[in-house]
Amino acid sequence: MKNILIIAMVLLGVLQLSCEQKNSVIFHESHELKKANAPFSDAVEIDNLFFLSGQIGMDHSTRTLVEGGIKAETLQTIKNIEAVLKHHNLGLENVIKCTVILSDINDFATFNEIYIQYFKQKPSRTTFAASGLAANASIEIEVVAFR
Amino acid sequence: MKNILIIAMVLLGVLQLSCEQKNSVIFHESHELKKANAPFSDAVEIDNLFFLSGQIGMDHSTRTLVEGGIKAETLQTIKNIEAVLKHHNLGLENVIKCTVILSDINDFATFNEIYIQYFKQKPSRTTFAASGLAANASIEIEVVAFR
Amino acid sequence: MKNILIIAMVLLGVLQLSCEQKNSVIFHESHELKKANAPFSDAVEIDNLFFLSGQIGMDHSTRTLVEGGIKAETLQTIKNIEAVLKHHNLGLENVIKCTVILSDINDFATFNEIYIQYFKQKPSRTTFAASGLAANASIEIEVVAFR
Repeated sequence: MKNILIIAMVLLGVLQLSCEQKNSVIFHESHELKKANAPFSDAVEIDNLFFLSGQIGMDHSTRTLVEGGIKAETLQTIKNIEAVLKHHNLGLENVIKCTVILSDINDFATFNEIYIQYFKQKPSRTTFAASGLAANASIEIEVVAFR
Repeated sequence: MKNILIIAMVLLGVLQLSCEQKNSVIFHESHELKKANAPFSDAVEIDNLFFLSGQIGMDHSTRTLVEGGIKAETLQTIKNIEAVLKHHNLGLENVIKCTVILSDINDFATFNEIYIQYFKQKPSRTTFAASGLAANASIEIEVVAFR
Repeated sequence: MKNILIIAMVLLGVLQLSCEQKNSVIFHESHELKKANAPFSDAVEIDNLFFLSGQIGMDHSTRTLVEGGIKAETLQTIKNIEAVLKHHNLGLENVIKCTVILSDINDFATFNEIYIQYFKQKPSRTTFAASGLAANASIEIEVVAFR
């Protein structure tokens, strides 16, 4: 009888632990050395959700915006998001929500043409144009990922 | 004794299952036939949360923006959100957070007058004006709902 | 034998209850008397997450924007966020995600200088400039906090 109680308690303990692990938060530093002093984390992980900081089309090895306008920047932005996700063993297929901020709404079609090649699982999405983005970027994308 | 252990294990199994169901993600296709090729889901469901794509005042049966400016578009936008929620057995009362994007901040009072009639439970809200919205819309609203 | 079963059931009940408590939602009224009629909650709490409404640099005791431009408004905005968090026994260190909306992207450096003094744990962040904010504000900050 005692054995059964012990087994039951251990099982409950394991289960409880797995529930409690749901209450954790991790502020992830960037894997990019040149972003060490950035005032934001590349991603914050809570439970199964990863809230990523907005990415622009910056080549983080040089910390300069890639040349080539909306097309090149959209590609680099997605590449940057993918790199952060990969660092946490995630991929673009884990993205559940995208907020896309353009600097010019007329770039919508061009950005979208590239976007659809990468986010095939169709995260929910909101798109608008800002009056200005950091580093004079043409596009910024913020994503939420789910493990 | 064996019986008790079996019962305990089954109960634990059920409980574990109910916990595991919390780790699911569903990319919901639109109920609107004309949105089948949209590069985003109308809603993505994770655990108890529904992240909806931003909606504008588009009549999805014709895929054109309703006429009548901010007033008509606000009504249609809310109607579109309600239709997505209803498709998942949810209602506007399940909305916990709204992001409201206007194309002109001077439309704030008019939009708000309509808004308060529908979101009576007072979701948290952030409102700003963009420099441009898709389809030349006057308003876009993105919501998060909770079951 | 019956005793063991009863103990196991009670333990399971407690555990189940702790899981079920994860499905709650609370629309928190503002602690500011003058915001009683605002069409949004200061914060909506679901499970361990607090979705706060966007705050601007408004002195809520007078309901007027503080004077002094981006510097003064950034400070007041953060103070307002801190007050809402404190009302729920949270602090700025609980913030996991910030959306920063400026009215002029050229205010970025000034806003950031103040920001880094308060959000030291580095929430993930997205920043952009809008074409307009409510009350002619220079900055609006929306945060998500986690207990």
